[in-house]
Amino acid sequence: MGALSKMKVIDLTQVLSGPYCTMVLGDMGAEVIKVEKYPHGDDTRQMGPFIEGESACYMMVNRNKKGMRVNLKHEKGKQILYRLVESADVLVENFRPGVAAKLGIDYETLKEINPGLIYCSISGYGQTGPYRNKGGFDIMAQGLSGIMSMTGEQGGEPVKVGIAIHDIAAAMTALYHILVAYIHKLNIGEGQYIDISLVDSGLAWTVWEAAAYFGAGEIPRPNGTRHRVSAPYQGFRTQDGSVLVGAANQKLWEKFCLNVVGKPEWITDPRFREGVDRQANVDTLAQLIQEIFITKPSQYWLDKMEAEGIPCGPILSYDQALQNEHILARDMVQEVEHPVAGKVKTLGFPGKLSATPGHIYRPAPTLGQHSEEILQSLRFSAEEIKQLQEEDVI
Amino acid sequence: MGALSKMKVIDLTQVLSGPYCTMVLGDMGAEVIKVEKYPHGDDTRQMGPFIEGESACYMMVNRNKKGMRVNLKHEKGKQILYRLVESADVLVENFRPGVAAKLGIDYETLKEINPGLIYCSISGYGQTGPYRNKGGFDIMAQGLSGIMSMTGEQGGEPVKVGIAIHDIAAAMTALYHILVAYIHKLNIGEGQYIDISLVDSGLAWTVWEAAAYFGAGEIPRPNGTRHRVSAPYQGFRTQDGSVLVGAANQKLWEKFCLNVVGKPEWITDPRFREGVDRQANVDTLAQLIQEIFITKPSQYWLDKMEAEGIPCGPILSYDQALQNEHILARDMVQEVEHPVAGKVKTLGFPGKLSATPGHIYRPAPTLGQHSEEILQSLRFSAEEIKQLQEEDVI
Repeated sequence: MGALSKMKVIDLTQVLSGPYCTMVLGDMGAEVIKVEKYPHGDDTRQMGPFIEGESACYMMVNRNKKGMRVNLKHEKGKQILYRLVESADVLVENFRPGVAAKLGIDYETLKEINPGLIYCSISGYGQTGPYRNKGGFDIMAQGLSGIMSMTGEQGGEPVKVGIAIHDIAAAMTALYHILVAYIHKLNIGEGQYIDISLVDSGLAWTVWEAAAYFGAGEIPRPNGTRHRVSAPYQGFRTQDGSVLVGAANQKLWEKFCLNVVGKPEWITDPRFREGVDRQANVDTLAQLIQEIFITKPSQYWLDKMEAEGIPCGPILSYDQALQNEHILARDMVQEVEHPVAGKVKTLGFPGKLSATPGHIYRPAPTLGQHSEEILQSLRFSAEEIKQLQEEDVI
Repeated sequence: MGALSKMKVIDLTQVLSGPYCTMVLGDMGAEVIKVEKYPHGDDTRQMGPFIEGESACYMMVNRNKKGMRVNLKHEKGKQILYRLVESADVLVENFRPGVAAKLGIDYETLKEINPGLIYCSISGYGQTGPYRNKGGFDIMAQGLSGIMSMTGEQGGEPVKVGIAIHDIAAAMTALYHILVAYIHKLNIGEGQYIDISLVDSGLAWTVWEAAAYFGAGEIPRPNGTRHRVSAPYQGFRTQDGSVLVGAANQKLWEKFCLNVVGKPEWITDPRFREGVDRQANVDTLAQLIQEIFITKPSQYWLDKMEAEGIPCGPILSYDQALQNEHILARDMVQEVEHPVAGKVKTLGFPGKLSATPGHIYRPAPTLGQHSEEILQSLRFSAEEIKQLQEEDVI
C-alpha cells in the first residue's frame, strides 16, 4: 500500500505539467480521479503517436488514475464536481487564470464546500503579476527565464532544452507544494490555495547562475557541453563518437595528464597549472585534448579514464539510453497492460523507497472509463446517470 | 510558521542536489542542521564568485539551515552524529555509494538508533546497478539519459542543458520522496530508506520522448528552438533580436496567417493546411516566416501576436530575466542579510502557498557557526565541547 493511500485527488488538468504531478501522487498510492472535459477529454488524446488508437503521450502521464468525463460548463456537471470536492484532499487545475472562477469552481467557491481542500492552480505565468493573462507554453517560459539563453553551442544562438523543462518544473513544484500542504493538513486540518507558474518553477532552478550573476554580474551564455567554471569538463569527439570528461579537480586533472593523454608536461604548463589557469585557457586546452581524443575510439578513452577514477561517460542517443544496461537494471523501463493498447512500455520510478515503493496500480483510463463507477460512489442513481448521459453532461 | 515546522533534518550533503533539497525543506519551516566535513566544509565554499570572502554558490542553496562542522572520520564525530540522529526525522547524504557504510553512518546502523528515521541517499548512479560505483556528475547523467542528445542546434552536436538539470532533478526527486516518506511516518510511525540517483531522476522527466520512442520508435535529436510535433512553435530572428512563436493549433495558425504575417494564402496552401502538413514542411515554413520576421523589430511582432492571443514571448538573457517586471512582481528576487557578506540577493519561492508560505528564516551559515549551540542542545558540556575542538573533531 502506498504512502499516500489516504489521499484523494481531483485532477482537472491536461497535457503535461498537471498530469505529471497527479501521476506521481497516484504512483505513491493516492486515489486520483481525472475529470476530463466534454466531449473530447484531455487534448493529448489527440496527440500522436497512437497505439491501437490510444495516445502514447496520454498513456505515459496518466497511469494510476481513474477517469471520468464531465461537462463543467453544464450546471449538472458543476454539481458533480461539487460532490467530488466534499471528500477530496487535493484539487489540481491548469485552466488559464480566471477560467475556474467563470466556471464557478475556483478556490473561494470550493473551500465553502470543503475547508480542508488543497487547491493547486498551475498556469504559464501564475495568478498575479502583469503577464498573468497571457497564454504561456513551455517554450515561452524557457525564453523568459533565461534558461534558453544559456543553452546552445558556444557562441551560437539559444536553443530549447530538449525536454519541456518548465512544464516538468511546474509539475515538480506543484507536487512538492501539494505534499507540504497535505502535511500541514494532517497536522492542523486546514486546506489552502497554491499558485504555481511555469516561469517561476523553472527560474527557481537557476541557482548556480543566480549566484554568479548576483555575486559577480556574470551572464551565462550558450557554451556547448562545457561547464562554466571547471575545465576540462565537457564532451570531446573520438574516432567513433563522443565522450564526456569530468576532470573537475586538481587531483583528477593530474591523473588525466599523466595516465590518460600522456602529457605530464601539462601539469607544470603555466597555461594549465591550476583550475583558474585551465578555465582562462579553456579554448586552447579543449583544442589540444580534442586533437588527442579524435585518434582513438570512445571505449579506449572511457576505459583509460575509469581506470583512473576520472568521472566520464558516453553521450547516448535516447534509444541507446533506454536500452542501457544500467538504466534497465534500475528498473527505469516498465510495462503496463492497457485494456485497448495492450502491453505498453512506460518509464519506471526515479526514487526507490524501501517501505512504500511506487507502484503501477492501473493503466491510464480510456475516456470516461470510470464515470459510472464514480458517480455511483457519489450516490447518483442509475436513472440519474442515464439522464446525465442524455443531457451531454458526462 | 511553516508547514514542516515539526520536521528535523540532518543534512550531510554538499554541492548542489542535496543542499537544494534540504534548502526547500528549510524554506517550508523544517529545522535543518547542515553537518559539514572537517576541516573545510562543503566543497562549494571554495567556489567563486565570493562576496566578502563568502561563496555566492554556497549562500544561494544553504539558506534556512543551521551549520556545524564535524569530523565524521573521528570516533567522537560519529558519536555526535549518532546523538543528532536520535531526534531526527530525516537524514540526507550524497557520499559515493559505500562511503556511509565505511564511516559507520549507513541506514542499517542508524535505524537501530532511530527506527523512525527517513534516510535518503543521493548519488550519480544510485546504490544498485552495474554503474553504482562510478563517479557521476551532472554532465555524465545528461549524457547517459539521452537529454544531451536531444538538445542543440538543428542537425548539430548535442549540447549541455544550460543548468545542471540532473542535479536539480535529483534534488526534486529526493525532496518529494522525503515528503512522501514523512507522510507515511506521520501515519504509521515508520521510517525508511530512499535511494535517489541523478540519472534516474532526469530520465523520469523524458515522458514525451519516451511516449514517442515506445509508441513509434522516434528518436529525438537536437532541434534548435523547435517543437518536435507542432509548427510554427519556435524562435525567429527579428530586426533587433529574437521572438518565440507558439501558434500551436489550427485556430492560432489561421490568426497568425491573417493578422500577424498577412499571408491569408498560407491557410489554403497544401503545404501548410493542417498541423501534419506544417510539420512535414517545417523547414520551408520556418524560412518563409523568418524572411518576414527579420524586417521588423521584436516588439512589433510581440504586439501583433498578443493582440491575436497567440502565445509568444522574448528570449531574454539571464540578466534581463532577473530584471523583468513580471518576474520581479512574482517576488522571484529577494534579499537576505548575511552576517559576513551583508545584503545578498537570492531567488524567491516558486510556489505561492496561501496558509504556509515559504519564508527566509535565516541566511546560510558560516562554517561551524552553530556547532556549539547544537552540541549544547545535545547535552555536551562546555568542557567536552572545548575538548572536541582541541581534538579536531569539530
